[in-house]
Amino acid sequence: MRMYDIILKKRNGEELSTEEINYFIENYTKGDVPDYQVSALLMSIFFNKMTSKETSDLTMAMVNSGDTLDLSQIKGIKVDKHSTGGVGDTTTLILAPMVAALGIPVVKMSGRGLGHTGGTIDKLESFKGFSVNLSKQQFINNVNSIKIAVVAQTADLAPADKKLYALRDVTATVDNISLIASSVMSKKIAAGADSIVLDVKVGEGAFMKTSESAHELAKEMVRIGEAVGRKTIAVISDMDQPLGLAIGNALEVEEAINTLKGNGPKDLLELCITLGSNMVILSGKTTNLDEAKTMLMNTIVSGKALDKLKEFVNAQGGDISCIDDTTRLPKANYIIPVVASKTGYVTKIHAEQIGLIAMELGAGRTTKEDVIDLAVGIVLNKKRGDKVEVGDVLAFIHANDRDKGKKAVEDLVKSYIISDLMENNIPLIYDIVY
Amino acid sequence: MRMYDIILKKRNGEELSTEEINYFIENYTKGDVPDYQVSALLMSIFFNKMTSKETSDLTMAMVNSGDTLDLSQIKGIKVDKHSTGGVGDTTTLILAPMVAALGIPVVKMSGRGLGHTGGTIDKLESFKGFSVNLSKQQFINNVNSIKIAVVAQTADLAPADKKLYALRDVTATVDNISLIASSVMSKKIAAGADSIVLDVKVGEGAFMKTSESAHELAKEMVRIGEAVGRKTIAVISDMDQPLGLAIGNALEVEEAINTLKGNGPKDLLELCITLGSNMVILSGKTTNLDEAKTMLMNTIVSGKALDKLKEFVNAQGGDISCIDDTTRLPKANYIIPVVASKTGYVTKIHAEQIGLIAMELGAGRTTKEDVIDLAVGIVLNKKRGDKVEVGDVLAFIHANDRDKGKKAVEDLVKSYIISDLMENNIPLIYDIVY
Repeated sequence: MRMYDIILKKRNGEELSTEEINYFIENYTKGDVPDYQVSALLMSIFFNKMTSKETSDLTMAMVNSGDTLDLSQIKGIKVDKHSTGGVGDTTTLILAPMVAALGIPVVKMSGRGLGHTGGTIDKLESFKGFSVNLSKQQFINNVNSIKIAVVAQTADLAPADKKLYALRDVTATVDNISLIASSVMSKKIAAGADSIVLDVKVGEGAFMKTSESAHELAKEMVRIGEAVGRKTIAVISDMDQPLGLAIGNALEVEEAINTLKGNGPKDLLELCITLGSNMVILSGKTTNLDEAKTMLMNTIVSGKALDKLKEFVNAQGGDISCIDDTTRLPKANYIIPVVASKTGYVTKIHAEQIGLIAMELGAGRTTKEDVIDLAVGIVLNKKRGDKVEVGDVLAFIHANDRDKGKKAVEDLVKSYIISDLMENNIPLIYDIVY
Repeated sequence: MRMYDIILKKRNGEELSTEEINYFIENYTKGDVPDYQVSALLMSIFFNKMTSKETSDLTMAMVNSGDTLDLSQIKGIKVDKHSTGGVGDTTTLILAPMVAALGIPVVKMSGRGLGHTGGTIDKLESFKGFSVNLSKQQFINNVNSIKIAVVAQTADLAPADKKLYALRDVTATVDNISLIASSVMSKKIAAGADSIVLDVKVGEGAFMKTSESAHELAKEMVRIGEAVGRKTIAVISDMDQPLGLAIGNALEVEEAINTLKGNGPKDLLELCITLGSNMVILSGKTTNLDEAKTMLMNTIVSGKALDKLKEFVNAQGGDISCIDDTTRLPKANYIIPVVASKTGYVTKIHAEQIGLIAMELGAGRTTKEDVIDLAVGIVLNKKRGDKVEVGDVLAFIHANDRDKGKKAVEDLVKSYIISDLMENNIPLIYDIVY
């Protein structure tokens, strides 16, 4: 078998066999197939697409390129949740304790933020002392005893995906449904959960810009899950504006804590309940979605979810005093209000720009090596559909550098589109794909 | 400017600007743009094609990636000839002396053979002592004094093309009209000729398998030539069977000598006259094609072309005694007849297979590092349209290794398709593109 023939076959629009896909992934992982041949293949895939069979084969080849986590020591149906990446998306920190509070094992490997999107692992480090790296046995023990553990994804899981993603990133071959779906699913499958709830973001601040492409991606990931024996549900949710109000690591942690205390933004809570109730359904706890939602709401009302958060943070070595007293979380030196210069209704908040502004403040990374500033970020005061008058505060910039703060204020004003149009029914959940 | 954006733009079907193409070629030549980004761009070009403007820009960017030969010291309109590569194509060795014998300066840089196609430089080395490397001044002096010089192409001419071709070869991005046309034309333009006659081969033994693609390539190369101020004519000729009778280095040299003595195969002579007369037209010697043909035929009849060959070989240090006495050329130890086992008419001779059989005998290279055997090869005794009876000799294998010779006999029988169908009008020249 030769890599040249595999490229040629795909370029000519033919379907690759399981053996050919395995050959490509195995030898690329080993370093025996050079990047320049792989990028040519990736571009052929971009143009000629992949069939369902090829996509499943690619997913499993990437799963088998490294370790797979054996979680059979964990009792019960283990559920995982994954988001395709958004701005101000702090759902994991809220719904993981809620679901775990119902006795359902939540096993989660998360990533760090890159570009305009944040990462759960960075946010968790806002808890002083929190360890994102547990030994496998510790991870299993934690889930067995307290039903929840969240750790950083290791390089040993799906290394082929890691290598492939880095190459796609610099060769303009990222945006292909099969490549995105197999990348997400290979990591989830290697991470060992029995069932997976996916949050597919759609809109200007998401990777999928149109409802059509988000649906296509959601369907493909659910199909892969089923094909390899993992129950999978995908929720398609809005990212035409940031989720909730906070963007930035400690700021989002504070928002998550407030939500678990019953004081969270409506959209954030709604998405958590939607995703969480599907996790409950997949766990087999109930087959009734309304019942699942009520169960989850009760974990907030009863304080059990907040207690679970404390238990979880404590088990991974984090300082839990800031959960009762959020003023103990990392705080920025300057809080600068951003003021409206126009009267009307907020019709748009450029989510991607907001993410980039937060990144420039230091909340995110431009390259993997960047060190982030946990304290900085943005807290929105107005969202889509809100009425604003000249002088109203649109948002607050949290900065540690005065000049960066000023720049952020200027940029943020431009991210708000204010017009005479009053909108009702701002969308949040577009669809759920089973 | 970033290479990533250039890939993305081409991938999305937009036209690249001159600046973008220059950026890509300059930085790739310098080694600042990695192969994996270039192969992604090449595959995007394969799928989305290039416009005429892009193709001209790419050609000139490759010309400017290295040295260009300044031939202004040579008096007169300098003509070059280039073939897209065939089997048994010894035209250069015949028409270059013919055209030079008319006082027209012939400046030629040639390549070595690779795969199933031969190269003029290898063939010339059949003349003991022949030097394929002349200093620039010697090259110019030879052309000024005897009107002809043929040297090996140096790495300094269009180095970007060299690098790009090597990458295309391993990433299944060779067969794109714009990339092929710019590759050929960049080398020709850098080599400094004022006008260029191209021989575009079409058929089973050529790079262009269909008349349609050969026409497309011919038109594109002529267009590039015009766009950059070099008069260019393309002849489209048949490669559905080998040209002439000899395949192999010294064997083709012998055939060329015989042709200049007036004893050449009809098809080979006809193609030489067609290509040569167009060179004469481009040189401005006459505007009448029939007159140009007569002038060329007279160089054979008068013996002037043969004298010119001797003068040329002598000027580059080669032994000319073998021109009068061709038995002094390198000879193989074994000459094995290949006999027909069927009666009928020859309807097909697989040219590519014949080229590969010659290669296996040692006449060609599988990799650039292979050392070739000048003596070995094949001499056809029957060509398309010929009647054969059982026992007739189809061809002679010239081998230096008995086992390789036997293998070649077996393979050669399979390359001949003999049927009851009598064909007239076997094509040779399909079209001429001005």
